Amino acid sequence: MTNLKIIKAKRAGFCFGVKRAVELAFKSAKKSKGVYTLGPLIHNPQVIEKLSSEGVHPTENIDDKNINTLIIRTHGIPLQLHEMLKKKSFTIIDATCPFVKKAQQYAKLLSSEGYQVIIFGDEKHPEVIGLISYSGDDTIVLNSNSNIIKLKKKRVGVIVQTTQPANLFREFISKLVKDVKELKVFNTICNSTALRLNETKNIAQKVDLMIVAGGKNSANTTQLATFCRLSVPTYHVETAEEIQNDWFKQVSTVGITAGASTPEWIINEIEERIRYIGGNGDNGYPR
Amino acid sequence: MTNLKIIKAKRAGFCFGVKRAVELAFKSAKKSKGVYTLGPLIHNPQVIEKLSSEGVHPTENIDDKNINTLIIRTHGIPLQLHEMLKKKSFTIIDATCPFVKKAQQYAKLLSSEGYQVIIFGDEKHPEVIGLISYSGDDTIVLNSNSNIIKLKKKRVGVIVQTTQPANLFREFISKLVKDVKELKVFNTICNSTALRLNETKNIAQKVDLMIVAGGKNSANTTQLATFCRLSVPTYHVETAEEIQNDWFKQVSTVGITAGASTPEWIINEIEERIRYIGGNGDNGYPR
Repeated sequence: MTNLKIIKAKRAGFCFGVKRAVELAFKSAKKSKGVYTLGPLIHNPQVIEKLSSEGVHPTENIDDKNINTLIIRTHGIPLQLHEMLKKKSFTIIDATCPFVKKAQQYAKLLSSEGYQVIIFGDEKHPEVIGLISYSGDDTIVLNSNSNIIKLKKKRVGVIVQTTQPANLFREFISKLVKDVKELKVFNTICNSTALRLNETKNIAQKVDLMIVAGGKNSANTTQLATFCRLSVPTYHVETAEEIQNDWFKQVSTVGITAGASTPEWIINEIEERIRYIGGNGDNGYPR
Repeated sequence: MTNLKIIKAKRAGFCFGVKRAVELAFKSAKKSKGVYTLGPLIHNPQVIEKLSSEGVHPTENIDDKNINTLIIRTHGIPLQLHEMLKKKSFTIIDATCPFVKKAQQYAKLLSSEGYQVIIFGDEKHPEVIGLISYSGDDTIVLNSNSNIIKLKKKRVGVIVQTTQPANLFREFISKLVKDVKELKVFNTICNSTALRLNETKNIAQKVDLMIVAGGKNSANTTQLATFCRLSVPTYHVETAEEIQNDWFKQVSTVGITAGASTPEWIINEIEERIRYIGGNGDNGYPR
């Protein structure tokens, strides 16, 4: 265990969209009071707690008189709701992930160009509910389990929920292209989830133990942990405090990864804690 | 052998584009002298012979002073050559298959919309050589054996050589969509070849013998025959005269199919000849 080797995933932690949203929330809290997010900003209790301590609270009630600033979450909201919010007296901060924003614009464009719009994704996902509002009522939501229905128009435009797996989307497009005359596809998949999972998979195959950092309520962190367990003993932790010395008894190499909603400070604390346990450095932890 | 059962493919013979081209050629011959086709009109010696007897001859020399009317073949020609022909004094009859014509227009459209144009097909095929001329010098021709190269533009527009197999095209699109942000596909495949092959396959599995009618130099007829031989004894014939009585000695059911360049009159003669041999009718053949 002495001189424990640590391999930390380069893609651990906040994705671009989450990082941007959290930064916007903290900045807003510094500028004004009465800052709210429309629903919890991300699935990480420590970040939500920290935001709360700075005065950023989740709300579902847009008529709450205490709202001075309302932050829209990363996965976006329906166009009609956005229009409604604009009429309110509070300031709106749009923390919709720019990749989702782009998908919304493409949904609108395809619809205005007269395409039958298809969204590849989960019809109950808030991002998809948002996207539909941009492409209109005749939008069809399909996923890898759907039978492709008989389409009325021969010109079909497709966008994808940003977090869909690329391989399923490719299969879907391959089926679709057979039956349509004109197909316009905006590949709006954000591949950071796939890249993170791939990197984590590679690390898990090289180490004796994996530590996966992130909210227990975070779907993508849980997915990383489930995946690691296929290769190696794995602990899913939210904070450094949960880490126990005896996990490392038979361990010479440990991997660290984290979900898209896990902040850097938590990942760093976890790394420092493991480094201390491994005897590789003195960083202020009690011996 | 008595009461021989005959199953004739509904999709045997001329496809839409070939039928149109041959009709145009015969009509032109009635209207004027000096009618030429730029290369042989189709791959069927009997049709070429019949056209010749009516005064329609193939030529490669566009400066031939005898040309009064020049017919462009079904697979089309490059834009520049077309422009050059327009300056000549002869009449041009454009027998380019309307499906190929559409593909040419789509190639031009995709290029004008700023897409990196990809043609899925055989770069040496005259149809593809024609298509490239519409989408410009930076057009890339790829097929199922190509590695997809690193594309300079993230907006990619695709058209397909009309006779490419649909399954290979679907696989190709599935690979391509992974790496591009925007993909516009015109599925310009004419599925008559695939439908004919499927029907032929079904018939070949039900009969004791297959007769495949068409030019020995016709690629698609030869393909049909090769395919039938996998299921059942098969003869590839150009004319009814080639058919021999003793082929049918042990046969109670026979299938008839024909390539896209085989005229109806040849298919009918073949059917009549077989019907006569089978003793199912008296249609003027010497007993």
